[in-house]
Amino acid sequence: MKFVRFGDPGKELPGLIDAEGKIRDLSGVLPELNGAALAPSSLARLRGLDPRSLPVVPAGTRLGAPLAGIGKIVCIGLNYADHAREASLPIPEEPIVFMKAQTAICGPNDAIVLPPGSEKTDWELELVIAIGTTARRVAVGEALSHVAGYMTGLDLSERYWQLERGGQWTKGKSFDTFAPIGPWLATADELASPGELAMRLAVNGERMQDSHSANMIFSPAQIVSYVSGLMTLQPGDLIFTGTPAGVGMGMQPPRYLRAGDRIDAAIAGLGEQQHAVVAD
Amino acid sequence: MKFVRFGDPGKELPGLIDAEGKIRDLSGVLPELNGAALAPSSLARLRGLDPRSLPVVPAGTRLGAPLAGIGKIVCIGLNYADHAREASLPIPEEPIVFMKAQTAICGPNDAIVLPPGSEKTDWELELVIAIGTTARRVAVGEALSHVAGYMTGLDLSERYWQLERGGQWTKGKSFDTFAPIGPWLATADELASPGELAMRLAVNGERMQDSHSANMIFSPAQIVSYVSGLMTLQPGDLIFTGTPAGVGMGMQPPRYLRAGDRIDAAIAGLGEQQHAVVAD
Repeated sequence: MKFVRFGDPGKELPGLIDAEGKIRDLSGVLPELNGAALAPSSLARLRGLDPRSLPVVPAGTRLGAPLAGIGKIVCIGLNYADHAREASLPIPEEPIVFMKAQTAICGPNDAIVLPPGSEKTDWELELVIAIGTTARRVAVGEALSHVAGYMTGLDLSERYWQLERGGQWTKGKSFDTFAPIGPWLATADELASPGELAMRLAVNGERMQDSHSANMIFSPAQIVSYVSGLMTLQPGDLIFTGTPAGVGMGMQPPRYLRAGDRIDAAIAGLGEQQHAVVAD
Repeated sequence: MKFVRFGDPGKELPGLIDAEGKIRDLSGVLPELNGAALAPSSLARLRGLDPRSLPVVPAGTRLGAPLAGIGKIVCIGLNYADHAREASLPIPEEPIVFMKAQTAICGPNDAIVLPPGSEKTDWELELVIAIGTTARRVAVGEALSHVAGYMTGLDLSERYWQLERGGQWTKGKSFDTFAPIGPWLATADELASPGELAMRLAVNGERMQDSHSANMIFSPAQIVSYVSGLMTLQPGDLIFTGTPAGVGMGMQPPRYLRAGDRIDAAIAGLGEQQHAVVAD
């Protein structure tokens, strides 16, 4: 299934995308697309629905983030060897873990708002994991059984605040609109393998990131297992799995986002995001 | 008002402490002590109650964390000059910000569980701020108007995972039980000033931390203002404001928690925590 949330900001309703690509309104059968909705029993019930029995949502309706009630956002740093090289950082021996404020979440086509005075806001296309069942110290072999689905996501990063203002990365990663997800949440069964997905991101039509989730250093299963050893993962938690090469910081000279820029980003099977970049 | 949540883990009910120190059951008038309960209109309604009209909770009932539905935990690093010195780190020029998984929350007297194999789990007594109203880029002068109240808290920190396993501090800060809060949440009006509170922590009866919130480098108002410039703070979010000198890492030789240890920690006006330290 491909889940969406549609409607005005803060008033989104749950929906799904049917076999013809139409959005169907789930609000009559599901109060919200949150962690509880991703439980196996809930997914089984929703799979039993005939999408044709659900109202069609008019084309052009805004899409919000496809998941609500997100508990925490865990992010993996430097998880693509080519990105570590462009950042002039060593290949990590184990996952680098940081967190992003969940208030940074926005919809797949919402404007990305540059913080006041920002001169170093960078793009990072990432495969996002949505947790479906509580995971605590799970082995690699069982880790993916705790994953409800996957999304396209961006880990927007203000490099000045991330790297030059003292301390930890969270500071440059948590501004509002710095975590767009969607357009849809694809349940795990929709993907042959989360480790075999083409990924591309363009700024103003120019291809910047052109990679593949097979280039990850640590696989989704390894990441879920590792993080679940550090903290309890709960339904509705997200893991951003790191970005491949091609971020602005790695260019010579570095190139960052400016008001008026446009971002197009997609992961195969998980849909495309289109963002206008705006000044605050 | 002093709010508590009482009952078995996961089944806590809201309560308050009356003028005689008795716990009164609020569950008949309030579904949960969460961000919504901290809204000014909600607090005004609760202030209008006569505590004597509420059922008395039996003495000895377990207390849980005094707040539920916590959105995010933002932490300030090295916010006491004496602690920065003992950690051999420079006095920060601006707040160091990191995040802690909210799944680390536990009650004020719950056991602190050492991660498997942990040899460097350290204590950090901290004043915890609970946000009551949405704060985005608020000035220092208005920052405290967004604070609903304060709590005693511990920012337990596994130094090996925090500092020796690559990357960011979150890794050693987010284990389950690493963020005990309470015993109560005191509304802001209960404290003359959050910057004038005695703080003490003992391990096995030996005083380790003996300080005062006046020793903070950045005040609660400065912290709320600063963090609100990086991310939107929402009702029910917490800010851990940093720890004074006296942590185990700063000792010669360093001293860390072992199974069987006991922690007693208190902040004036915010109550005392008592924890057994246990192996996993």
